[in-house]
Formats: sequence, structure tokens, C-alpha cells
Amino acid sequence: MIKAAIVGATGYTGLQLVNLLKNHPKVDLTDLLAHTSAGHPFSDIYPSHKDIVDRICDAADLAVLSKKCDVIFLALPHGVASKTVTREVLDNCKIIDLGADFRLRAAAVYESWYKTEHFGKELLDDSVYGLCEVYRDHIKAARLIANPGCYTTSSILSLLPLVKYGLIDTSSVIIDAKSGVSGAGRGVTQQMHYCEVNENIKAYGITTHRHTPEIEQELSAFAGFEFKVTFTPHLIPMNRGILSVAYANLKNGVSISQISSAFKECYAEEYFIRIRDGKDMPQTNYVRGSNYFDVGFVIDERTNRVIVAGALDNLMKGASSQAVQNMNILFELDEKTGIDMFPMYI
Amino acid sequence: MIKAAIVGATGYTGLQLVNLLKNHPKVDLTDLLAHTSAGHPFSDIYPSHKDIVDRICDAADLAVLSKKCDVIFLALPHGVASKTVTREVLDNCKIIDLGADFRLRAAAVYESWYKTEHFGKELLDDSVYGLCEVYRDHIKAARLIANPGCYTTSSILSLLPLVKYGLIDTSSVIIDAKSGVSGAGRGVTQQMHYCEVNENIKAYGITTHRHTPEIEQELSAFAGFEFKVTFTPHLIPMNRGILSVAYANLKNGVSISQISSAFKECYAEEYFIRIRDGKDMPQTNYVRGSNYFDVGFVIDERTNRVIVAGALDNLMKGASSQAVQNMNILFELDEKTGIDMFPMYI
Amino acid sequence: MIKAAIVGATGYTGLQLVNLLKNHPKVDLTDLLAHTSAGHPFSDIYPSHKDIVDRICDAADLAVLSKKCDVIFLALPHGVASKTVTREVLDNCKIIDLGADFRLRAAAVYESWYKTEHFGKELLDDSVYGLCEVYRDHIKAARLIANPGCYTTSSILSLLPLVKYGLIDTSSVIIDAKSGVSGAGRGVTQQMHYCEVNENIKAYGITTHRHTPEIEQELSAFAGFEFKVTFTPHLIPMNRGILSVAYANLKNGVSISQISSAFKECYAEEYFIRIRDGKDMPQTNYVRGSNYFDVGFVIDERTNRVIVAGALDNLMKGASSQAVQNMNILFELDEKTGIDMFPMYI
Amino acid sequence: MIKAAIVGATGYTGLQLVNLLKNHPKVDLTDLLAHTSAGHPFSDIYPSHKDIVDRICDAADLAVLSKKCDVIFLALPHGVASKTVTREVLDNCKIIDLGADFRLRAAAVYESWYKTEHFGKELLDDSVYGLCEVYRDHIKAARLIANPGCYTTSSILSLLPLVKYGLIDTSSVIIDAKSGVSGAGRGVTQQMHYCEVNENIKAYGITTHRHTPEIEQELSAFAGFEFKVTFTPHLIPMNRGILSVAYANLKNGVSISQISSAFKECYAEEYFIRIRDGKDMPQTNYVRGSNYFDVGFVIDERTNRVIVAGALDNLMKGASSQAVQNMNILFELDEKTGIDMFPMYI
Repeated sequence: MIKAAIVGATGYTGLQLVNLLKNHPKVDLTDLLAHTSAGHPFSDIYPSHKDIVDRICDAADLAVLSKKCDVIFLALPHGVASKTVTREVLDNCKIIDLGADFRLRAAAVYESWYKTEHFGKELLDDSVYGLCEVYRDHIKAARLIANPGCYTTSSILSLLPLVKYGLIDTSSVIIDAKSGVSGAGRGVTQQMHYCEVNENIKAYGITTHRHTPEIEQELSAFAGFEFKVTFTPHLIPMNRGILSVAYANLKNGVSISQISSAFKECYAEEYFIRIRDGKDMPQTNYVRGSNYFDVGFVIDERTNRVIVAGALDNLMKGASSQAVQNMNILFELDEKTGIDMFPMYI
Repeated sequence: MIKAAIVGATGYTGLQLVNLLKNHPKVDLTDLLAHTSAGHPFSDIYPSHKDIVDRICDAADLAVLSKKCDVIFLALPHGVASKTVTREVLDNCKIIDLGADFRLRAAAVYESWYKTEHFGKELLDDSVYGLCEVYRDHIKAARLIANPGCYTTSSILSLLPLVKYGLIDTSSVIIDAKSGVSGAGRGVTQQMHYCEVNENIKAYGITTHRHTPEIEQELSAFAGFEFKVTFTPHLIPMNRGILSVAYANLKNGVSISQISSAFKECYAEEYFIRIRDGKDMPQTNYVRGSNYFDVGFVIDERTNRVIVAGALDNLMKGASSQAVQNMNILFELDEKTGIDMFPMYI
Repeated sequence: MIKAAIVGATGYTGLQLVNLLKNHPKVDLTDLLAHTSAGHPFSDIYPSHKDIVDRICDAADLAVLSKKCDVIFLALPHGVASKTVTREVLDNCKIIDLGADFRLRAAAVYESWYKTEHFGKELLDDSVYGLCEVYRDHIKAARLIANPGCYTTSSILSLLPLVKYGLIDTSSVIIDAKSGVSGAGRGVTQQMHYCEVNENIKAYGITTHRHTPEIEQELSAFAGFEFKVTFTPHLIPMNRGILSVAYANLKNGVSISQISSAFKECYAEEYFIRIRDGKDMPQTNYVRGSNYFDVGFVIDERTNRVIVAGALDNLMKGASSQAVQNMNILFELDEKTGIDMFPMYI
Repeated sequence: MIKAAIVGATGYTGLQLVNLLKNHPKVDLTDLLAHTSAGHPFSDIYPSHKDIVDRICDAADLAVLSKKCDVIFLALPHGVASKTVTREVLDNCKIIDLGADFRLRAAAVYESWYKTEHFGKELLDDSVYGLCEVYRDHIKAARLIANPGCYTTSSILSLLPLVKYGLIDTSSVIIDAKSGVSGAGRGVTQQMHYCEVNENIKAYGITTHRHTPEIEQELSAFAGFEFKVTFTPHLIPMNRGILSVAYANLKNGVSISQISSAFKECYAEEYFIRIRDGKDMPQTNYVRGSNYFDVGFVIDERTNRVIVAGALDNLMKGASSQAVQNMNILFELDEKTGIDMFPMYI
């Protein structure tokens, strides 16, 4: 049994991790850590878990934890993981960080977008970007996994085949993404008040959202050169789900069958990625509650563009179930173990 | 492995059954039957299940099915099961009927509330009311299970301890219940149009809802005499969940500790029933996606009433996961097998 | 033109008042007061009102305000109005208080339910309970109006005809009420986070909600003796609307025509109260955005009970448009002036 | 008083028209026409309007109607208006058509996108596109107004200043739009079932939505040459509101002040168009229930793109209140008459 702990267990991502790891047949979830809830039973924070997860939450001490655990999941605000993960911790156990601190290769890029110093620069080279279907082999050998963001997973997986096979004009990429509210976390703000979100839609973080450089980093790596994208996220009145819609100009002469082949080359063998027909495009209720990422594309012949829609559950494939998928890879388990739920639809 | 089939697989209850049975470690789901969708892959009806459940739906022939299956789940409109289940079918296999046809002991009561003839009267004595925590022993020996309704499960389990231990004035019972929309099924009507349900609440079926006699039948059995209740259901703008709130006058001198003891006597050993403290009363997100039924009570000392709130997921404990719980009992499996999901909360 | 000011203009009730008073043909809205937003334009708090209401919010000084205004609307947390309204203020202008401080006749009842001292006891006798259709004549002569609560308006108007004409057993009254989220105000708490409210229903304040004594006070006055009720409010995932469902045992021999007559006697002449047929019972989208209160009843012959459903928009008839209706009465305008919007339905 | 009639009064657009015209100080709403509801009171279809609009709906006969009315509003499925509006009808009265039949200048374009013959080609030259702020002068002189679509109004008004002043590369225009459900009408389909829409987002009509040629027609007219756009609409779980987000590459050297000037030149004098700062971008609750169109833009300096967000209420500025605005222009009333509601926000 893999001994696992969750640091930041009382956020929505932490809650989802608790649900997955407690039911994982190969995991012994030994510790729940939560700064502000230390000393309280987990079920006080989430009364849904009364009689199920009554364990007391503790304050986190990574040095101690790392000696008793095989893997630690970090579900923390950015800036915290990079301060607390050390080489000693990594010598003791593996880390799967669901936050942003180790996702960007270049500390300068991080510091520019996050407006804060990076305190763990020396570990950046050790970290592996945990986009499972793309970096499976690297993940196997890693000790520090930077689990991708929710928007990023959908955006990168939607565009990667087109970039990799050189089918689009990379200077033309625009991503318009829509997210349910849980993606913004459980923090209490005026903007998250029910009445302000319900019956409303808004774009936010236009040109400044921090998932942008993450998307650019990964797609640029597959292009073989750097390029930039326009990324606009939106808040939608629903709890879970991301739909990203990406637009790009096709290179001259690119045919629909080339695009179709590119997606198949990349994903046909991938259990958790489903390529959808243009007449049955992804929607978020097709994947809710599951680790699936659905993708589909349509060619706009009038403008010679391709439109790629991707859908995932932001708390699952966009965060926690992908983190467990990373753990499965790290510990050489069947990748589907413990995360093979069907989509709920309703 | 238990060979199972679902008749009426393409409704919301059927969909939930598919999800549960396909993942059940002791079940081989051999057939999906659906009248109007016969000949179509299940994943055409629910594209969420593309690559997961692509099996073709067939038209149902219970006589044939019963010879190849160990158990058949019926998720059909009322009036259909009673016409098609026969003693021959029951000789061949076990039936778990999620519809209303075999829930009421007296055909006359059924005919009065459902305004239709009962076509399977001769099988009524064979059927067992599948309220698992209450009739476990009878269920074990049955071949025809009448799975309880969603409102009914919540209402009966909320009041049974009070009735059984004679703590309330049975003539005073009022149940005010609120349901998410999936309880009304997938049928296409003006009233189910998104814009008519969203940002709206209404009571419906006041004094005439067909779950009323079911509640009365079961509570009367535990009282030892017949009594009637007032039952008012409401439609709430959400997909899943039922909250029932029951009111009753306490008999003279009944104390809160007597009430507390009654609930504990009845439910303390029950894995799927959680008794909540009066300061942490049930709400539907505490049970969503799970087989749990949560119950809590408060005494109104000013009026000498008890107020009992019960919450369940109408597609799970209120329908499909209770049906699987019944199957587990019927086939002598651990009762939790395949239905032990944690509540989702979000 | 009536010179009016709003104290507490930036809550949801205040916002609704701003919308109504700015469009009222006989009102000059001179001042917007808001403690925490003083110095900021109203449209900074509600960007929806950019270019429409850009007026700067001020800190409130009732003494000063009262000298320049004909009427002041108070939309404040309980305990504030009773500290700041003085006889001098009332000598200068009329006050319509949308809060709770002057609703209860007996300071002791207030102090018991609100768990705080009442600081304006000497003004209680001057205040009139502003339930327009019931106390119209008293309102005309008043200088201090206690505008009723949202649940209370619906509950009292639903039961008053039955109580007034002695048709029900007053010891049997149970009110089960459901509210949209705006009724809880704009305050930022974990419980109001979108993800905690959406796809969830809960009862709250069971046996302790502060609208209970207000309902009892008014119904008792019409009964001619004191009696108590059981009142249970619920939070529903929608922005606006209250549906109250009241249950009571009918006195022996009371017929449906007597009940029907009682409602007609009380309300047939009332423009803003609509009596609905039992087959077309009230729902909240029938009244959203309007000052209407809809009421309907059904007799449960099996249990000899009457079930009365009432619906209103909690920000309109449940708060702000009733406050304006009170102003219209106070200033001898046509009662419908400025509040005669049609229900939105969608 | 202007004598007005509504044909297609029982759809959501018709309902909104009823609300606006019944309250319009210069209109006498003489007739409600509705094919399937003929013979029934309007309040049977919308019980919200009991005692308010109980008028019986009639079957429409435009020839007869046109002789008694000054203006007829048509809220009909495409293909109906073009069959029934004749030159005789237009000689008798003015027509404001909220449907699609007279929006496209070229019948061939209509026939290509709507896949049906156009039956009123001879009237196309008489019709004026009723985008009030853009074509005010033409509207004044017209007898047949083609009221713009909901997506179209938002899309065109968002991009018109940029196109008119030649600030963007017109070959790069992408519009990603999101709509509440009422935009799809009141028709009963599986896709509109509450449970299929709630907690879900999807794109639809990708590359094929019929508002596309309407957008292209109008923007091309202002560019002075024809160009095409990519347009993707989405369905969002809310009743009302459209947010369109448009993307375009800036021409070399275009500065933010040029863009700002372009918007001001076009809209600074327009009462119902509000230009928002990039830090306070449009969201649909800023305009709900009103005739306002809000627009804001952000420059993505990294990619040299402009991102323009526009928001409106699809039943108001996107349909019915713009239709009334057109009527106000046609009959030389103050353009705001009867449609100057504040945004609701909540």
C-alpha cells in the first residue's frame, strides 16, 4: 500500500483528492493537513463526510510527513509549495503538487506572471510537468510532479496534435475557455456570492490569466519554437466543468483528414481521451465526475480555420484525478486504478 | 457473476443503474433494453458514455430475458411492469422493479391513486417492499422486489422510529418534501423546459401525489393501525436531491432523549443511514452521488412538535443505488458492494 | 416631489429601493447612504448602474438627513435603526424601516428572539406595522413604518383570512417556507459561496428563525388570542422568490366555500393580491420582479387540513416594493405608483 | 395612441413584448395573436399574467389586422413572416419583424443559410435593418423593420467601431458568444430539458449558425468590402443574457487611444450603449432586464490583438426592447419611451 498524505485537504481540490484516495485500492491515506482547520475533524469542514472521514486535520510539516509517506499531494495556493518543498523532502518521498509553483520551467516567467519571487528555483529542473498522456515516460522517473492547471490541461490537449504536426499557423491561436465556479476554489469573496454568479456570465483575467504561460510553454515545446496565444477565461454559473474552445488558422492545404490523423496519432491509444465527431462535440456533462478529456474539432471552410473544443471536469482531470493518475504512473500501477468513474451526465 | 439486465435503460434512473452495474464487481450487465431506443447504441442516447457503453439497446422480451439473466431491473412507467412480469418470469429470475406497480399491498389502493387497473394482482403477495434497512430479512427470500419511491424512502425512514416507538400523534403528520428535477424523469414537457424550472419553485400534486399511499402503508404497518398523512412535494431548480421535512405533534411527556433513542435503536447499526445532530441538519449536498440517507430532528418546545429532516440523492438511495442494495441482499453479497461512493458535496 | 433618502443603499434591498425610487414619478431621491461605501459612487458598488446612478454614497447622519428629506428608508441590520431613529428625527420626517427593530410590539419578545437589547423602546408605540393591505388606515396616519419581513408577508397574508374568520385550529399551524438566496443579503460568508448553495437545499433556523414571533404577533391579533406556530425556512438555489406553504387543521364542518369566501372577503379588492385556483397554485416565477402576492389553497379532505401556498418576490413585495407601497400610502398617492411592474416569468 | 398588435405573442419574445407594450405610455395593445393558443386567454399560457393580461389570443390574419393597427410586431419562426407580409399589409401599417426573414439583403444568402426558399423577395428592398443606434435615420422612413438577432446585435455593435475606422485586420475576426437559454425559445425538446442544460455548457451550430451572415453583412457594409467571420455560439445554464467576446488582430501601429476614440465616436452619444473600462468589463448581470448594451475592450499587447466583450439581455436589447426602440423611432417618440428600465443586477 502506498502511504499518502494531502496538504491543503479542505479546499475543493483537496476534498476531491480525499474522495479519490480514500477509495483507491492501493493507497493508505495517512494524513490530512490543513492550516486553518488544524485540530478539527475533516467532517466538521465537510459534514458530507460525517462517519466517513472524521480524521482530525493537522498542521503540515513536510519534513516530518515526508519520512512517513511515500507520496504527498500538495493542494495549496501558489507560492507556498516552492517555499516548503526541499531536496530533503524529495529524498524521502515523492511530491505531486497541484499548485502552480513548479509548472513553469523558467523562474523568470513565473515571477513575471505571478508577481512574486520564486523560492524554489533549485528544484525546477527536478520537476516534471504532469500532463499524463503527454509526459508519461518522464513522470515515471520523477520525484516532483507539477500537476497541470485545469484550463491548461484542456487547452494543451486540444491543440497539441495540431502544433506537433505543424498543421496550424501558431501565431493565430486564440483560446476562449469557460469554467464552473469550483475552479476558483472555496475562498470567500463578494464575487463568489451565489447571487453574483447565478444568472450571470463574465470574462475575467483577460490577457493576464496565469495559465497562459503554461499553455505557451507546453505548446511551444511541441512546435519547436516559441509562440504566444490569446487566452480568455470565463466564469459560468455551474459547479464543475471546463469547456475550452480554441481557434487557429490552418496552414495552406491542410485537409480535414490530416487533422483527424493528427488527433488519432496522439490520442487513439489513450483511454482517458475521447475524440468526438464534429456532429457530437464535447460538452461538460459528458465528462462530469470522470477523468475523461473529450475533444472534437470542426473546420470552418469559409475562413480556413479549425475550431477545437475540449471538455473536462476541472476538479477531476483538471486537478485531482489527474494527480492520482500521476501517482499511478509514479508507482507503476495500472493508470486507471481508482479513477475510472463513468461520467455522471446528470 | 450475477447476470443482470436493465429494462428502461435510457431514462435517468436507467442511466444511473447502468453506471452502478457496469462498475459492480459481481455483476455482468448483459442486456440494455429500451423500447424507443431499440437498435441504437446506448452511447447515442447518452454521448457521455461513448467508448464506455456502446452496447446496442434492444426491445424488451421478459420471457426471453428471464432465461438468460439472474436478475432484471425494471425502470418503467407505472402500469407496464404489472402487465409484463409473470410467474414464469419470476420462476426464471429475480425482478427488482423500480416502478410503482408492486409497492402497494392493496390493488384497490393502487387503482384509486393511479387511476388505472392493476394487471398483476396475483403477484402482489409475492412482492416485497425493498426498503433495505427495514425489510432486509424479507428481501433475502424474495423474487420480486418493489423498490421504493424517492420521496417515500426519505419520508418513511424519517418517521419510522417515531411511529414504531409510539412517540407522536399519528393524526398530526405532515410531510413537506422538495425534489430536484431528475426525479420527474427525462420526459419532454413544457414544464421541464429549463427556463420554466430555473429561478422558480412550486408545489405540485398537492393532496394527490402517488407516493402518499406508499408512505401511509408503511408507516401504518409500524404503528399497528392505519393513519393518513398530508404530503406536499415541490420542484426545486437543481438536478439531484430530495429533502423531506416531516412535522408531527409529540405525545404528552415525550422527551428528546426518547426520540434520540428511537432513532439510534433503528439506525445506529445502519451503514447507509446517518443520524445528524440538530445543529447540523441534513442538506442534499451532504449525500449527493451516494447511497446515504441522512436524518436529523429538532424539537419545537414552544409547540411540542418534532421536525424531522431527511436527505437523499433521488437517483441513488431514492432509486438506483437502493435497487442495487436490494440486489446485494438478494444475492447475499456485502450490502455495500458497488454502491459505497462518498458524497460529492460539490 | 417627495424628497427621499435610502440608508443602507448598497445591500440587495437597498439596490432594489434605488431602482424603484429613481423611477418613481413623485420621488426625488436625494441621498444614498452607506456606511462601508461612503465616498464611493453607487455605480462602483453596482457597476450595472454606471451612467445611471453614479451618485456618491455618504455616511448616514439621520439628524441632518431628516431636515432635508420627507421620508427616509432604512435598510439596515437589526439593532441599528432602534439606536439612531429619535423622536426629533420623526418630527422632521417620516421613516420607513425595512429592518426588524420596530416590527414587534413587545420589546421583551424582540430581546428574546434577537438576543440583544432594544434601544428604541419609547418609539415602539409610534410605529405601525407596514403590511399595506392589512393596516392601510393606520399607515396613513403614521410617521414610523415597520416594513414587514419577506417570510412574514407571505405567511401572514396566507393565513390571515383563515384566522380572522375562525376557520382553523390555530394550535395546528405549520409554515414551511422556501426562499431564494437574495433574502439572506449580500454579506460574504462561506455558506453563501456559489458552490455551497448551487445544487443544494437545506432548512435553517429551525424553531429559531426571527420571523416567527412577527407571524405570531400579527395572526394572534386577528385571532383575538395568542397562539404559536411552527415555522421552518429553507434556502433554495435561485436568486429571488419566496414560496410559503402553510398547513392547518380545519375546524369541524368548515367547507371549502367558507374558505373561499374568507379569502375573497379579505383580498378581492386588493390589486396586488391574487387568489389562485387550486389547480393553478402559486409559484415564484408568477410574481418575480413584481409587487404581487399570489395565494392559493387546497383542502386535503382525507386529513381535514387546508394547505395554503403563497408566493412573492422577496426583494419586492417582501421588502422594497412594499416599502414604496407604504410610502405611497403615507403620502396619499395612488398605491400602485411606481411599483406596478408586471411579473417577469422568465 | 399607437395601435399595436403582436403576432406570436406566446413565445418568450412575445411575452416580453406584451410586458413592454402594455406598459408603454403611447401604445394601445389591441391584439394578441398566437396560432396554437388561439381561443385561450394569454394568462392561461402565462399564469403570471392572471388578472393582468387575460385577453383571448386570436389566430392571426395580417390583412385584417393591418387595417386596424398602426404597427404589428411579428415574433415568428423564420419562413412565416416572408409568406404573410404583403405590400398591401405594408400599405396599411408598419411591421416590426423580430424574426430572420428580412434581415439579409440577399435572398440567396438567406436561402443558403436557412435551407429554405425565401417567399418575400420583392419586399427585401423595402426592409430596413433595425439596429437602432446604427440605422436610426433609415428606420425613421421605413415601413418594414427587420429587428436584429440577439447574437448579432451584440456582435455587430462590438466590432463596428473597429471596422468602420479600419483598425483591425478583418480577415482575423473571431466571435465566441454565450447565451442564456431563453434565446432558444420556448419550444419543447429534449435538449431544453432542465437536467440537460443545468450544470452543463456546450457550443452548438459551430460554423453553421444563422446569425453569421447577418453579422458579416453588416460589418462588411461598414468595412466597404466583404469579409467573413468565425462565429461560435454557446448555451449557458441561465435564463437571460448574452456575452459575446470578439477577437481581432490590430493593424500595424494601431494604438489603444485610437480604439478608444473609435468607440467614443460611435457611441458616446448613445444613451443605451455604455462603454466600459478594461478593468470593469461587461457581464450579463450588468444589463439584465434593460435595453442597455455594454461594451468594453482590452488590448493583448503580446499578440497585438484586441478583445471586445459585449453584453445584453437577449430578450430585451437582443429582441423585444430593441423592437420597441424601433417603434419609438418609427413613430417619432423619445427613443427611451417605455424601455428605460434599470438593469436588475439581481
